This record gives sequence, structure tokens and C-alpha cells, in this order.
Amino acid sequence: MIPSTDWIANLKYDANGLIPAIAQDYQDGAVLMMAWMNRESIALTVATGEAHYWSRSRSELWHKGATSGHIQKVKQLFYDCDADTLLIKIEQVGNIACHTGARSCFFKEVELAET
Amino acid sequence: MIPSTDWIANLKYDANGLIPAIAQDYQDGAVLMMAWMNRESIALTVATGEAHYWSRSRSELWHKGATSGHIQKVKQLFYDCDADTLLIKIEQVGNIACHTGARSCFFKEVELAET
Repeated sequence: MIPSTDWIANLKYDANGLIPAIAQDYQDGAVLMMAWMNRESIALTVATGEAHYWSRSRSELWHKGATSGHIQKVKQLFYDCDADTLLIKIEQVGNIACHTGARSCFFKEVELAET
Repeated sequence: MIPSTDWIANLKYDANGLIPAIAQDYQDGAVLMMAWMNRESIALTVATGEAHYWSRSRSELWHKGATSGHIQKVKQLFYDCDADTLLIKIEQVGNIACHTGARSCFFKEVELAET
């Protein structure tokens, strides 16, 4: 069965043709990273079941984990109410999503005011 | 105690002075929404303990829940490894984050290819 991909064309991309994608662990719900996708990387993500992003720093398609082995197997993919953000629920191979070696890119916590 | 807010100045904002902020339920980990913040909204979020965003559609500061009552009490705030995305763990008052009335903005799931 070939899934319809009309929704890919109908997403709201920014001026650079990109849309933010949040990668969340499909089991425990940890938010692991946020990166950007373009139409091509979304289509590849859907077709292969592995997360593909657009690297803004390298200006190239980025098959996450292609060099590190830390690929992301996509379990579910959602877009939000105004179709300008993606959420992918993934199995993070190696349990490391961040290029620093951390599990999640969100390891820097700041102090809030005491209210 | 007044927390240091040097980190706010050191975040990487986009060309419009904005940074994406992911709001996640602090208890069950559900990703509820993604919206944008600028320096002022981050400072207000930290100072008040309630999420403030920048509304791109209205071009104004947006105290989430100010009209609906669905405010977001911030429990933890993180920035990511390259300091260009925020993650806030929140208590969502009313358990509704989305303007559609849904709990989460990410309720549209797409079909993946069978791999």
C-alpha cells in the first residue's frame, strides 16, 4: 500500500522551505532533539521509516545516524494544528540522539525565578 | 534569589529574533505544542513561571492562556546543545494546550510507508 503524501505539499514551510521536526522517544516520551526538514527529507523519512533532516549548517540532506549509526526509526509522525511543525515518535538506535554524545540535546537546564 | 539570565542573551535567535519553544507535559511527557519566543517572552516566562510566547500571526507578546485560562506553569526550562531551541516542561492548566480545544496540537497523524 502506498500512503498518500499530499499532506507533505500542504505543510507550511518557512521562507527557506523548512519545517521544524521534534523527535521524541516513542517509549518514554523524552524529547531528544529538534531539527529541520524540507519536502525531500520528509518524503524520504516517510518512505524509508528512518528520520532524514535538512542540515542548515551543511546545507545538505542529512540521514540522521548515517555516519554515527544512531539512526532514528520512525514509529509515528504527526503534524500540528496549523501544519507548521512536525512531531516524530522514534526508536533512537544506540539511545544517543545528540552529536555531543548525550541521549537528548536538551541537557542544559536553566534556573527559574522563585514565584 | 535572582537567577542569572545571561543565557537568554546568548541563545541563537533567528533573523526575526525568535527561537522555537517546545512545550511538554511535565508529568506524562506528552508534547503539547511548539511556539516561538523572543528575548522578552523568555524573560517574562522565567520571571513569572508562566509561558509567554511571541505570536507571529498577531505580532505581539502572547501570555498563553491569558484569555482562555489555559495557562502553562513552567516546571523546568532547557535549551539544546546548540542553543537554538527551548524545551519547557509545563503543567498545562485545563489540560488543553491547543486553540482547537485538543489537549495537544499534534493530533494529525500521517501514514508511514510499510518498510
